[in-house]
Amino acid sequence: MRFQAPESLSEQIAQHLGQRIISGQLRPGERIQELKVAGELDVSRGSVREALLILERRHLIEIFPRRGAVVSQLTPELVNSLYDMYIELLCMLGRKVLEKWSAAELTGMAAQMNEIQTLIDRSDSRNGSTEAVIEAGFGVMRQAFALVDNPFLEETLENFRPAISRTYFVALDNFRGEITETRRFFRQLVEAASTGNSMALEASIREFGEHQRRQVLRILEQE
Amino acid sequence: MRFQAPESLSEQIAQHLGQRIISGQLRPGERIQELKVAGELDVSRGSVREALLILERRHLIEIFPRRGAVVSQLTPELVNSLYDMYIELLCMLGRKVLEKWSAAELTGMAAQMNEIQTLIDRSDSRNGSTEAVIEAGFGVMRQAFALVDNPFLEETLENFRPAISRTYFVALDNFRGEITETRRFFRQLVEAASTGNSMALEASIREFGEHQRRQVLRILEQE
Repeated sequence: MRFQAPESLSEQIAQHLGQRIISGQLRPGERIQELKVAGELDVSRGSVREALLILERRHLIEIFPRRGAVVSQLTPELVNSLYDMYIELLCMLGRKVLEKWSAAELTGMAAQMNEIQTLIDRSDSRNGSTEAVIEAGFGVMRQAFALVDNPFLEETLENFRPAISRTYFVALDNFRGEITETRRFFRQLVEAASTGNSMALEASIREFGEHQRRQVLRILEQE
Repeated sequence: MRFQAPESLSEQIAQHLGQRIISGQLRPGERIQELKVAGELDVSRGSVREALLILERRHLIEIFPRRGAVVSQLTPELVNSLYDMYIELLCMLGRKVLEKWSAAELTGMAAQMNEIQTLIDRSDSRNGSTEAVIEAGFGVMRQAFALVDNPFLEETLENFRPAISRTYFVALDNFRGEITETRRFFRQLVEAASTGNSMALEASIREFGEHQRRQVLRILEQE
């Protein structure tokens, strides 16, 4: 059993606003007014300002001198920059896992992977399960953090997760039809890890990342 | 002529405290007390809290629930994690420059590089010039940002710069004797860029990064 310190108030406000940005309730370019948020949530203006700094760090808003906080744009250019960064960092994570651990030591990952395969297999019949598959994917990333033990890589990738979730949300309906693709990706990942094949691991991360990027871009261009 | 908005108060406080951390006046593990800083600088506690969030983003402090803000440790493990990340991101930056620009288009970089060579050539005879060479090195990085135009890569690398400066400060005396090494690195960089040789560019970034990592680690282990 793990006891965790409760989230600070500013973290709670950041998560509340962050969820509204990820799900599209707060639109790209929309202003977030400190005073209004403070009034709505019945919290101090200072706590809201701190929450906004946390959201800026997570790439969900931008803070401009005088103009204040604005929900980040979601243009094809920005999505491309985001995926360039995210794919590169995931490849680094994968390489570091195989640098530090032998294939035999990675059996712990296999259990998590099997869980994902089960989730994926169920996901055509149940509602909301696409989100469960996405969450499980992030779970694999977190397991890799523990294996690599680089707090800077973990923090940087975790800070990109909300912005990536936001792009997934855009393409969620498209992702639903993707069970075969996702299953194939995780199978490749397990195979590459269990044979210690760093190049195959990187290639499969890159292929899946590029596939998701293309889907998100297609939807954005239709809008 | 460019007009810039003045830095916010919290940014000014962050830079003041950040400089004291980078130069070692605030020691690893030292607590930073909000109330004390607010009193010393005659600013509100809220502004100090915001400054601390900015410093956390720049990897100079850690904020713990209840315990408050503490200057980040500077252990060999953390320095290794930091350089792993920094070298990887610089390599990505270099690759992206050559993906987007032909060698012929990179002549603008050459002027900046010549400036650095001049700085380096002077740096054995003048005081404080090691810092000037380091600053010029960061200047090359910033020019590359403009060429690559990926705001996420820029932000992430800029957020690592203070923590890297802090490690440079540790090894500053050692860096002073390094004119030949540094000159060779920048010459390799110019040559690789001007021939569009991505692999050579990455190799020289990696070699120089690893060299600096080793120096910092040696000093830390002596302490």
